[in-house]
Amino acid sequence: METMKGLVWRGNGEIQLTDLPRPRLREPEDAVVRVTLSTICTSDLHILRGAVPRAIPNTVLGHEFVGVVEEAGPLSGVRPGQRVAANCITFCGDCWFCRRGFVNNCEKGGWELGCRIDGGQAEYVRVPYAHTGLTSIPPQVTDEQALFLGDILSSGYFGAQLCEIHPGDTVAVIGAGPVGLCAMMCARLFGAAQVIALDINPKRLRMAWQQKLADATIHPSSSDPEQAVKALTNGRGADGVIEAAGGEDTFQTAWKIARPNGVVALVAMYEENQTLPLPQMYGKNLIFKTGGVDAAYCQTLMDLMARGRLDPSFLITHKAPLNEILEGYRIFGEGLEDCVKWAVTPYERSR
Amino acid sequence: METMKGLVWRGNGEIQLTDLPRPRLREPEDAVVRVTLSTICTSDLHILRGAVPRAIPNTVLGHEFVGVVEEAGPLSGVRPGQRVAANCITFCGDCWFCRRGFVNNCEKGGWELGCRIDGGQAEYVRVPYAHTGLTSIPPQVTDEQALFLGDILSSGYFGAQLCEIHPGDTVAVIGAGPVGLCAMMCARLFGAAQVIALDINPKRLRMAWQQKLADATIHPSSSDPEQAVKALTNGRGADGVIEAAGGEDTFQTAWKIARPNGVVALVAMYEENQTLPLPQMYGKNLIFKTGGVDAAYCQTLMDLMARGRLDPSFLITHKAPLNEILEGYRIFGEGLEDCVKWAVTPYERSR
Amino acid sequence: METMKGLVWRGNGEIQLTDLPRPRLREPEDAVVRVTLSTICTSDLHILRGAVPRAIPNTVLGHEFVGVVEEAGPLSGVRPGQRVAANCITFCGDCWFCRRGFVNNCEKGGWELGCRIDGGQAEYVRVPYAHTGLTSIPPQVTDEQALFLGDILSSGYFGAQLCEIHPGDTVAVIGAGPVGLCAMMCARLFGAAQVIALDINPKRLRMAWQQKLADATIHPSSSDPEQAVKALTNGRGADGVIEAAGGEDTFQTAWKIARPNGVVALVAMYEENQTLPLPQMYGKNLIFKTGGVDAAYCQTLMDLMARGRLDPSFLITHKAPLNEILEGYRIFGEGLEDCVKWAVTPYERSR
Amino acid sequence: METMKGLVWRGNGEIQLTDLPRPRLREPEDAVVRVTLSTICTSDLHILRGAVPRAIPNTVLGHEFVGVVEEAGPLSGVRPGQRVAANCITFCGDCWFCRRGFVNNCEKGGWELGCRIDGGQAEYVRVPYAHTGLTSIPPQVTDEQALFLGDILSSGYFGAQLCEIHPGDTVAVIGAGPVGLCAMMCARLFGAAQVIALDINPKRLRMAWQQKLADATIHPSSSDPEQAVKALTNGRGADGVIEAAGGEDTFQTAWKIARPNGVVALVAMYEENQTLPLPQMYGKNLIFKTGGVDAAYCQTLMDLMARGRLDPSFLITHKAPLNEILEGYRIFGEGLEDCVKWAVTPYERSR
Repeated sequence: METMKGLVWRGNGEIQLTDLPRPRLREPEDAVVRVTLSTICTSDLHILRGAVPRAIPNTVLGHEFVGVVEEAGPLSGVRPGQRVAANCITFCGDCWFCRRGFVNNCEKGGWELGCRIDGGQAEYVRVPYAHTGLTSIPPQVTDEQALFLGDILSSGYFGAQLCEIHPGDTVAVIGAGPVGLCAMMCARLFGAAQVIALDINPKRLRMAWQQKLADATIHPSSSDPEQAVKALTNGRGADGVIEAAGGEDTFQTAWKIARPNGVVALVAMYEENQTLPLPQMYGKNLIFKTGGVDAAYCQTLMDLMARGRLDPSFLITHKAPLNEILEGYRIFGEGLEDCVKWAVTPYERSR
Repeated sequence: METMKGLVWRGNGEIQLTDLPRPRLREPEDAVVRVTLSTICTSDLHILRGAVPRAIPNTVLGHEFVGVVEEAGPLSGVRPGQRVAANCITFCGDCWFCRRGFVNNCEKGGWELGCRIDGGQAEYVRVPYAHTGLTSIPPQVTDEQALFLGDILSSGYFGAQLCEIHPGDTVAVIGAGPVGLCAMMCARLFGAAQVIALDINPKRLRMAWQQKLADATIHPSSSDPEQAVKALTNGRGADGVIEAAGGEDTFQTAWKIARPNGVVALVAMYEENQTLPLPQMYGKNLIFKTGGVDAAYCQTLMDLMARGRLDPSFLITHKAPLNEILEGYRIFGEGLEDCVKWAVTPYERSR
Repeated sequence: METMKGLVWRGNGEIQLTDLPRPRLREPEDAVVRVTLSTICTSDLHILRGAVPRAIPNTVLGHEFVGVVEEAGPLSGVRPGQRVAANCITFCGDCWFCRRGFVNNCEKGGWELGCRIDGGQAEYVRVPYAHTGLTSIPPQVTDEQALFLGDILSSGYFGAQLCEIHPGDTVAVIGAGPVGLCAMMCARLFGAAQVIALDINPKRLRMAWQQKLADATIHPSSSDPEQAVKALTNGRGADGVIEAAGGEDTFQTAWKIARPNGVVALVAMYEENQTLPLPQMYGKNLIFKTGGVDAAYCQTLMDLMARGRLDPSFLITHKAPLNEILEGYRIFGEGLEDCVKWAVTPYERSR
Repeated sequence: METMKGLVWRGNGEIQLTDLPRPRLREPEDAVVRVTLSTICTSDLHILRGAVPRAIPNTVLGHEFVGVVEEAGPLSGVRPGQRVAANCITFCGDCWFCRRGFVNNCEKGGWELGCRIDGGQAEYVRVPYAHTGLTSIPPQVTDEQALFLGDILSSGYFGAQLCEIHPGDTVAVIGAGPVGLCAMMCARLFGAAQVIALDINPKRLRMAWQQKLADATIHPSSSDPEQAVKALTNGRGADGVIEAAGGEDTFQTAWKIARPNGVVALVAMYEENQTLPLPQMYGKNLIFKTGGVDAAYCQTLMDLMARGRLDPSFLITHKAPLNEILEGYRIFGEGLEDCVKWAVTPYERSR
């Protein structure tokens, strides 16, 4: 039996880079992918903190990765040798929910890879329902560009889409981390005239500005967000708000900076219940949309990258082989070295 | 100076039927209406309980009424003698929000009548922006049918509309009171195949059933709502949920009985903050829409009544002249005599 | 080899009831259905007239039928013994178009049954992609109710849906034949306040009225349709128009009776090019939607029938066994005996 | 009485630069604007050719202009000294159509300026319903940028909006003239990944490419448009097609290059009836939307220009004072000197 290296979550916050059997096809819709680039996601940290009830210990982590198809089942829709990006959500494409486009709520799927079944922080990974779970990467798109397709780019797009943006709108994004930055990028696709970034980390605000993702930035300690957003919107508030930070304070900020009849998209993964002060917001007629990542738009996002309309590769601030992934968890997890995203290249045996 | 009778809220839960100067035109968009039928609304009780911060003491209550135009300003859009139904929301029709259809958030309006300016529990009432605030009643529609147009029927319609109902959907309505019953009626307009009513009052559930507004009823003490709704929806939950009860328990029930990717319309007037258990609902991708009443559809609703598609007049369980309105507040306010709606006919001087 | 009876189109307007080999499964998604009720459709007459280029001679006709699953492939999604209604459109559910909901333009499908592969005017029929091509019939729905699900009821629903009907709208339907009557029925589902039927056949207008499908009827020879519709709509015209007649005159009537910014749904099968008088309609800002039948809503329509919201069984004016189908083509095809729909029961060997 | 210079259409293709009485306020919603920059539009040529039945002879032409408010009525919503851009469509904002957002079909408006009432190819112009007919120009937007707001930019935006563009879509624009170029610019706002320009004029295709408005260009004589578009769209055709040329051939090209279930926006002003070959396009399920210019988005477009998201000023290839406007009609009208748009500066008395 062939083996490979992979990062296994043992439960109780413990992770281990270890030798594992190399995965094989099990179902006709499966594909086995040789991982060429993967990354660590904030959701992995949520698993380590025990905040993801659906996660199953002794699973290989990693749900954001690209690679090359090694083996392809007869109903997988892919063929060996194809470069592919993985969708972090598994879905069958045929159940009641999938047929209506609610693929995130597939009766047979959900967040499986790197959570309930072995994921992509390894040399190889088995991807179920590969016909919906893998997106072909065209030659003009690099691995670095495609890496975030299936999770944070999809999440950012989902946030922007939930906001029902019309050309000319102002969109405020709370949290200029990986998902927030992707959300800003995607808000532009829907015609946002003004994107406002809010964060407590000035370096991230600076990145949002320098990458031309945000037109204005607000640091909550230097100005009251509600007043600052109103000043930028003729006193009305933002047409759409994307909450990508996940805190108690940011949740409250989110609805306050929205204009009456605006949309607040809650795309963060909250670890605590939140308070909805309905009497205080009476008459504001707000819409709150909850959700993590939408798995339905990977082909669309790939098409946009192929045409040069989207490029999230600047998010990669660190890159090292799988051998050093524990160090990656430390640096990324503790927010050291201004790390935005840590990319993982294949295991190097000769070192 | 001509006088009239009217019910004035003095603040501190005190109301008084008293003599008042009869209102006159002030602005060119104004109309003065002779009230032929009005009613008491749950929102009036909210005012009495001090739960409506925007309400101003010493105001005549009443925001749900029909009547005949007595005087009409040059820009009022109506003419003396016209039978009209009042819109409980005042809006200018021309500001940034009005032009985009968000008339509830008119920069110059909102809930004014019977809250901040004198309302319709009187013999006469001045209606500002009458061109948007009054809807003409065609001959085939009775006062009893038109009475609820501008508030509870609009609220019920708003709730149904917020739910984005598609033909064939299941809509659950929590609270079979006046607004909930109107919401059930309107859910049918959008093609709901199955309407489920939930209430703790068996008589109201019975009314929902007998009026053919609900296909199924659920009494929370006799069955778990979440399981009961799932049993009626192939295990999925309701496509849309209209929360018209306003309690802590009903708020929690609302999101639990919604299917993944469903819409929860919160049309009740909540007196307390609510808890949004985001970690528990993670992955359910729900949409919450907050709002009270939408003032934009009065003409549509009148058209539907004129064609015989809607008739909420059965809600009137009690009717008495303005002379007896204090008794009406007692009976309606305490939920006595199975009172659903108490209608107020004109003051009788000869009694 | 087992045989069966079936009606074969030989080309050149010739049809023949003959003995044929009984169909068997070929692909894993196939099912073989024993037909319990089928019908003759206007599209069959189009084939006979040579007006359907995609039709292939020597095919068994019939694309509107119900039956019982006799054999089920492993990926068919159905099981033997299940009562099912057929979808007249074949689609894979997985191609670029299907994934976006444009199932009518499936890369592997389209109108296949009774056009390019053997259809349902037979004792047995093989249905490809049965997981999308068959809808299970619940016990409370009769064969007569379910018979039209997959073609004319879907077509009527498609027409209504294309019109983007809002509650309160006026919808005009040109052609009170089978599809037109279904369209009227479905317009109600979307909240149409007023349905206007237009036809040159007074008996069909009478049926539309008696079945409470139309609120008003217009016979073009007795009144000018444009003026008549305006008189019913405050001078504006119909919000939506469904053209289900397919003539040159009706095409012109369609856009004339629509209000500015209205939608005209062209659901008839036109045998001739039509003239779009753009200079004459300049500034009217009309929307024209072309299409035949939408195969995507069979489950929704079945749910509505199961709840008692739809019942097209009254369309069956004639019923006889397969033995008499040639007579059926004559009666239905020539519009004799006020035939609306001719239903075909199973072949009777003992006669 | 003060006089001014203005270009009057006498009927029969005759225009004359002449002295006229300077306009004054008539209605409370009126404003009088001192024109600082105006332009000649293809629609003016349509009037000269007698192809605009609603046009009234002896009217000052010009419906695309910017200026400074000279006099403002009490209900005009503007104030003297304000820089403003004109909306080519007049609408009241309050009728049945206006309240539903169909402002183009205002019961009291339509294309009035420069068609039925005196327009902007003059020193001064009276603008009715100025509260909806004028858009304030912020300081950072130049006259050259704002000049096209109310007609060709609105038309281009309308075309893009009609196409229901989703991010990632391919949009084909037929006609790379002023409206077509604006449509390409606006298609980007809705997230189009690929814009394809079609024209018979290579210089205009070159301009589309150089201004980065089009990703691909097709010259019909050098390649078959249908095949060329399919080659750029995986064989499917364009998701949206904007027909801005107005010819018989371009009309046929439009529906052929659209993918099944796509949208064809007909924003050209057609001088001839067109043929809709419905049998040939059967099963393609196309949507055709007709319309000229949408007057509803001027504020949105101004906001986008103010944020630097739109800048159509490159369209101005020629600029000269009102004194030379007859020369402008000749150059622009005959397509000489590669003229795209001819801008008209104020009349110079000292020359």
